[in-house]
Formats: sequence, structure tokens, C-alpha cells
Amino acid sequence: MNPVDALKNELKQIKDLKGAINLLYWDMETYMPKGGTEARARQVSMLEAMAHERFIGEGVSKPLGELVDLDSGKSLNGLDSNTERLSFEIWKDYHRAVALPKEFVEELSRTASLAHPVWVEAREKNDFSLFSPHLEKLIALKHKEISYLGSNSIPYDTLLDEYEPGVTTEDVEKLFSELKTDLVPMIKAIQDSGVDTKREILQQHYDANKQWEFSEVILKDMGYDFNCGRQDKAVHPFTIDFHPTDVRITTRINENNLMDCLTGSIHEGGHALYEQGLDTDWYGTPFCEAISYGIHESQSRLWENLVGLSKPFWEYYFPKLQTVFPENLSNVSLDEFYRSINTVKPGFIRVDADELTYNLHIMLRFEIEQMIINDNIEVAALPSLWNDKMEEYLGIRPETDTEGILQDVHWSHGSFGYFPTYALGNLYNIIIFNKVNEDIPDLNNNISNGKFSPLREWLKKNIHQVGRKQTAKEMIQSLSGENLTAKPFITYLRNKYSEIYPI
Amino acid sequence: MNPVDALKNELKQIKDLKGAINLLYWDMETYMPKGGTEARARQVSMLEAMAHERFIGEGVSKPLGELVDLDSGKSLNGLDSNTERLSFEIWKDYHRAVALPKEFVEELSRTASLAHPVWVEAREKNDFSLFSPHLEKLIALKHKEISYLGSNSIPYDTLLDEYEPGVTTEDVEKLFSELKTDLVPMIKAIQDSGVDTKREILQQHYDANKQWEFSEVILKDMGYDFNCGRQDKAVHPFTIDFHPTDVRITTRINENNLMDCLTGSIHEGGHALYEQGLDTDWYGTPFCEAISYGIHESQSRLWENLVGLSKPFWEYYFPKLQTVFPENLSNVSLDEFYRSINTVKPGFIRVDADELTYNLHIMLRFEIEQMIINDNIEVAALPSLWNDKMEEYLGIRPETDTEGILQDVHWSHGSFGYFPTYALGNLYNIIIFNKVNEDIPDLNNNISNGKFSPLREWLKKNIHQVGRKQTAKEMIQSLSGENLTAKPFITYLRNKYSEIYPI
Repeated sequence: MNPVDALKNELKQIKDLKGAINLLYWDMETYMPKGGTEARARQVSMLEAMAHERFIGEGVSKPLGELVDLDSGKSLNGLDSNTERLSFEIWKDYHRAVALPKEFVEELSRTASLAHPVWVEAREKNDFSLFSPHLEKLIALKHKEISYLGSNSIPYDTLLDEYEPGVTTEDVEKLFSELKTDLVPMIKAIQDSGVDTKREILQQHYDANKQWEFSEVILKDMGYDFNCGRQDKAVHPFTIDFHPTDVRITTRINENNLMDCLTGSIHEGGHALYEQGLDTDWYGTPFCEAISYGIHESQSRLWENLVGLSKPFWEYYFPKLQTVFPENLSNVSLDEFYRSINTVKPGFIRVDADELTYNLHIMLRFEIEQMIINDNIEVAALPSLWNDKMEEYLGIRPETDTEGILQDVHWSHGSFGYFPTYALGNLYNIIIFNKVNEDIPDLNNNISNGKFSPLREWLKKNIHQVGRKQTAKEMIQSLSGENLTAKPFITYLRNKYSEIYPI
Repeated sequence: MNPVDALKNELKQIKDLKGAINLLYWDMETYMPKGGTEARARQVSMLEAMAHERFIGEGVSKPLGELVDLDSGKSLNGLDSNTERLSFEIWKDYHRAVALPKEFVEELSRTASLAHPVWVEAREKNDFSLFSPHLEKLIALKHKEISYLGSNSIPYDTLLDEYEPGVTTEDVEKLFSELKTDLVPMIKAIQDSGVDTKREILQQHYDANKQWEFSEVILKDMGYDFNCGRQDKAVHPFTIDFHPTDVRITTRINENNLMDCLTGSIHEGGHALYEQGLDTDWYGTPFCEAISYGIHESQSRLWENLVGLSKPFWEYYFPKLQTVFPENLSNVSLDEFYRSINTVKPGFIRVDADELTYNLHIMLRFEIEQMIINDNIEVAALPSLWNDKMEEYLGIRPETDTEGILQDVHWSHGSFGYFPTYALGNLYNIIIFNKVNEDIPDLNNNISNGKFSPLREWLKKNIHQVGRKQTAKEMIQSLSGENLTAKPFITYLRNKYSEIYPI
């Protein structure tokens, strides 16, 4: 067998194993009874270690070594550019993996599996002290991970690189400072304006089952394939894949807020379309993988915000929504509804945040994570640090840890350095969407008729099927002709929100 | 480490792996979208092969070889009787496993995983031809399995031995002939009696959600621990364990028949209590495993029939059931209800069968399986063979394959030789129950007050915690003082049903 086929074959099997592991995670967050926690933690850590061992084993290193120098990643013979790219991307993962001992991989996943249900409980009980010893362990393991990966960069960069290859703390800081310059005065102007967008329209009682059914109608229209996926409920909405033919999403329902479920479903639907749209010819390899977490997030945010909070979208769906909830919406106009769902108002919860304040939530987390990783700040100091920063950025102070430091699932999974990809997703998605609008001039018209296939197919062809043949930087370059800046995003916000608020 | 500890440690990890595999199966039958079938088949076959390889690997063979002769299973040194038993039981499994090549294990589980959803579809569409090529493959693999296991016995015995160690075709034939002698005239007398037990009481419309809630009330009362388990819906009710702290059951709901869901839940609840009641000190070893499939079935049937179809049980629950379904039951007396749920009437579906005709369903399957395995009968001939035998035994002929050959899930899993354990379960359970009644004289009184803990604790102590320290034969011997016969079961049936019918 030639080395590329040998690699593809081996990686396919490793990916199957990872798909099986993902089912264990999915179950932990959807259906697993609490009593199963300990055994499950052992199961995932064992399987994670197996997948890790196999990935750094001969089945990969032998054929990979025929394509690249295993130390430097430099390609060996006169490979065609596709193969060169493929083997370099595999090598990057390989190089990272060989640096991590099996015992470490096992310990990290076991620790995270035990931490997660405690986070759920701590959040329910509003008691950070339950979660803090787990968080301490996870942070210690992350420091260990950084030392294994032994890069010369600042520690936080090593973590960032896992989620957004090639992006540094400095890059993020520069983009955030750009964002801040425009966002802070915009938000201030909105708050001072006294404009009432009638948010209470959304905060009535909406039947849970009807919300659920409506979310599934939208998902089907978007093109999410229920034959290759399903939707369930979870504390924290997420998307997970076991194979491109089984990509599942979760959402949550709040009977007193219409948008929690709908935006959750649309957001995760955007992620899921990415996974369902991957190029399965390359299954198991980086060419059948998302470019980066930031690009992944660009897909979810594109559907959630640029489509799902747009006027054309609700021109199509609002009459249907009125039919489902006549008691709540029959006296509401489309324009009122549109303004209501686009209310800008600082709040405690990131996932509920509007498009403007959302990024401030990310900046706060980015700064706290840097302090955790680079400066070794004590875990006990985090809740008040969080609250201080909330006050500084958003002018409000959480009264409980559930509304503050405990709100996000990520740390309980051992994911640090992940949050910045959310803000990057917001910056990427408008660049992508501008390009879609160039290529499909009647896009708005399609959307206002519930016709999503041109958009979906464009994304599939130009983003989903690309895989890691491009980096995020290369993709943004090729779409916009320039390096990433926050400008298109700010322009988009200014255009959209100046219709609602005097900014 | 001493060899026993080394074995326990290794077997614990293998059991964790099997628990993870079981989650993949559970998901296949509960929530997996159809598109996930192929990838899932690869995942389970890969993990099954891994578990198999590890079990026949050095981690087991080395310490096991210090306790027994690996060829004969004879214990080596002067082991204490407990260790001797433990190592012999491990050796039996080991001996069976080493005979099977990894590729075979992989192929069998992949084939079964692909066959199962086709069986579901064939059953829905009432089209045996969809399933028959899969069935052919599975039968061919079973023949292969028998040849690998290479025993001198008749082929079907080799399969039987997997589920009910030490029990032969001859044993089963003898018991079945005993059963037939009494059952056939009893059923005939009942059919000729013209007694009307008002079965239509059960065949009204009963709200699905209320049925579900009532089933969970009963499960809780039985002592099924929802903190270490959960109930979901499936085409074919089953119990599956990922660890004694996560034992899940499924049931099904028929809005036009009250008992499908309740008996399904109680039956699986009986299985689940067994798994939740195992001795976790020996987790991973045969001492933390059910004695046999027949003994497992004795637990489910004990709860389903001896408890769940008894008068004391409904003395407690019937008033509650009337409150839940007043429109259906307020004018029904306890006695009428009791007679209704104990109606004896030949029907097509095994899982719906009454206590008398049930065993005839098993005999039919036992004979057909023997013809499949011992006589190589053609798959195409099976549907009409099935129907002929139904007519012969029960006097009714299925009009569709869904009501006939396609009704059971077992063959789609590659399980042949499993059915006889159901009949054995019926014979075992009355022997066990007679002993419980001896030890707990006021058992009926407990049950009629909804107090199940004395029964549950007795079963836990005397059955569940025993594990494979005893064989089924030894257990039955020690409980009844004699070898297994069908007599106690027949006596039980005659006593119970002579109150309802003139037999």
C-alpha cells in the first residue's frame, strides 16, 4: 500500500474510535444517570488513551515518515502539493500528540469527566466551592500540557494554537482592541438612547413542546439532515459528531424566553451543517476536518445571527410563529418582533448576549484565562475577579456564581484557550457572508422565501468541503483579499443597529 | 502483584471497555439516526475486537496461567476453593475466547450491527426478504463459530452452552416434553371452557404518558435505582449495563393495550435489579456476573409474572391505576382486572403471551433453531416453517411475517441458542419463589402493601450477589434440594389458573 492510502486507512480507524468516544461524551451530557459518572470517567480516559496511543503508533508514524521528516515536518520527496499539505497537517497533529504521554492523556480526560457533573451540580446549587478543587486540578494539568508541548511562546499561545492554529495572544489582543474602540461607545450610545425594543414580547410563557417543534422545522429548512443526526436537550447546547452521517445537536428550552431554544438550535444547526458537509472521501484525515474552531464558530454564528436575527429570515418565519403562538404574537408586528429579538442590553449570560455585547463577554474570559495560565492566579480569586470585570466591561455585577464564573461548560471539559475562537468566529462570519452575498445577489430574497439551499450549498462547497486544505488565515485572505480585521464586523453592526438605535 | 489481583485489575479494564461498547449498542436501539448505521457497525466491531484481543492477551493469560493449566483449566497449586472457582470460571471464558480469531469477532459484530436496523425495517415493512440475506450471513458465521469452538457435542449444544453453561439439547428436550405433556391439555381445556376473562378491559385507549409514569412508579417501588439507570423506549424491550452503577432498561408503549408497557417495564426491571445488585467488589470478574441467561430470565419473569400478575400486587396497585385511568377502570373490580390480565389465549407474539402459552412459543423457536444449526435448513423456508409450527402448537397461523418469523430481535443480534433460556427462566423462577416464600412467610402481605424490599433484598443476597460462584444447576439444587424439573412450574400454573378456568 502506498503511504497515503496506508495513512488514510489507519486514520479512518482512529477516527471511528474517536467517534465512539464522542458517543460516551454525548451520553454524559444528555441521558447518563448520575451514578454512572465514575465508570464513565474510566471508560473515556481508557479509550482516549487508546486513540492517543494508536495515533502515535507505527500505523501512523511509518507511512507518515515516508512523506515528511518526523522531527521537522518538512516534506521529503517531490510530493504533489495536495499530498504535501495533507501530510503536513497530519504531522502537526502527530507532533503535538507524541509530546503528550499516554498517562497524561488518560489523566486529563478522567479528570475532566469527573469535573463535568460537579460543574453541573455547582451551577445548579450556585456553589463555586464544589467545582473549585476540580478546576484547580484541570488548571494544573493544563500547565503540565503546556510544559509537555514545550513551545517557546508564551504559555497561553500554546493552548490557543490547539483551537486556532497560528493565531497568537498578540493577534487576539490587537483584534479585541480594535473591537473595543468601536463597540464600547456604540453600546454606551444605545444604553443612553432610551429606545424601548419591547423585549417583553419574548419573555412571555411559550409552550415548551411548541418551541421544540418550531426549532425542528427551522433545522429541517436549513438543511440539517435528521436522517444523519438528532436534537436532544442539554444544560449547555453543543454539537457533537460520531461520523459525518451521525452529527447530533442539543438545545435547551426556557418556557419564559422564546429565543433560548430557537437561537440554540439555529446556532448548533450551523455547526452541524459543517460536520454533515465535510468531504467524506477524506474521512479520518485533516481534509475531512473543520479548518479551525474559529471557522467552525463562524458557521454557527452566521446562521444564528446573520441569518437567524435578520429581517428576511423573519419575513418568512414570523407569520408561521404567529400561527403557533397566537396568544403571544397575534398583536405583534414583524417590525416589533425584529426589534425585540435584536435588543442590545448588557446581561450576565454570554450565550444570551446580543451581537454587540457578546464580544465583551469573550474579552473578559480571554483576560481571565491569560491570568490563569500565564500568571497562575488563584482559583479562589476567580469569582470576584469575574464580577469585577463584568462591572468594568458591561456595567453590571452578577449576584451569583451561576450567573458569573460558573456559567460556561468549557473549563469543566478542560478547554482553556477556546473562548477567543468565539470572537474570531464573529469576525470571520461577516467576511464569509459578504462573499456569499457577492456570489448570490438574491440571497436576501431566497432567505425571505425560506429557501436556504443556495446559501447552504455555497457554504458546503467553499467552506465545509475544504477541510484543512486551507488555514483560517488563508481562507479569510482568499475570500476578502486581505488579512483579518474587525472592520467588516463593525460596519455590519453599525449598518444593522443604526436602524434600531441612534448610533 | 499476586495473580488474583493482577487478573482483577486487568478484567476490570476489559469490563470498562465492554461497558463502553454496550453504550454503542444501547444508542443503536434507542436514539441513533439511521444514517449512523454503517459507521456504528465499524465502531462496535473495532471495539469488540479490541476487547477480545485484550482478553486473550498476556494481561489475562499470564496471571491466569499461574492459577490454572491454560489447556485443561485444572487448578495448579493448592488454591483456596474461592480462588479455584474464580480462576476456573475465568478460564472457561478465556478458553472459549482464544478459540475465536480476532477477525471473526470483528466480522460477527459488524454483520450483526448491519443486520439489526434491516431487521427493524423488515419488521416495519413486513418484508422478510429484506432481512433474509443478513440472516443467511449470520447463520453462516454461527456455523463458523461452532467450528472454531470445535467441541465434540452436537452443534446446537455449543451455542446453548454460551448462554446456559452445562445445559444440553437433550436436557432441554426432556424438560420441554415434560412441559408439553401438561401444558397442551391445560390450554385445550381453557380454550374449550368458554370462560370470558374480559380481555377488552385492557384493550381500550390508555394515554401513553400516563402509562409511562405509572411504569416508573412501579419501577421505583420495586427498588430499581434511577440514580443508576434510566428507562427509554425501544422497538424490543431490553436491559443493558455499562457498570452496576448504570443499568438501563427500555420498554414500549401501546396506547391500545395497557399491559405492553407495564409488563415490559416490570420484566426489564427484574433484569435490571440483578445487574444493579451484583457484587461490585468483584467487578470485571465472573463473581460480579449473572450466573446464566436462564437465571437472569428467572429474575425478570419472577417480577413480571409471579409478582406482577399476582393478586397481592394488584391489591396494592389497582386502586392507584383506577385513579390514573378512571375513564377506563372505575367500573372494573379488582377481580375482573386480575382475571383480565391473566387471560390465557394463544396469540402470535411471544412477548405478549400468557404464562401458559409462552413456553410453546419457545419450543417452536428451539426446534427451528435446531433445524437451522444442526440441519442447515434454507432461510427461504423459515417463514412457512414458522407458521406451520405455530399452527401445530397454538392452533393459529400468522398472516404476516411481522407477526411470525420477524417478531424477535435475537437473530438480528446473531443470538442463536438463546431462546431456551427463556423457558428455563420460567422453570427456575418458581423454584426460587417457593424458597423466598419459605424464608419470608408474609411475602404476600408485603406485596399487597407495596413493600418489595424484603423480596428484593432476598434476591440480592441469595441470587444477585452470588455471581458465578455457583452454576445454575448448583443453585437450583441448593434451593430445592433436587435437580431441575418442570413439576413446580406446572403445579404453580395449575393452582393459579384453576381459580380462573376449569382445569
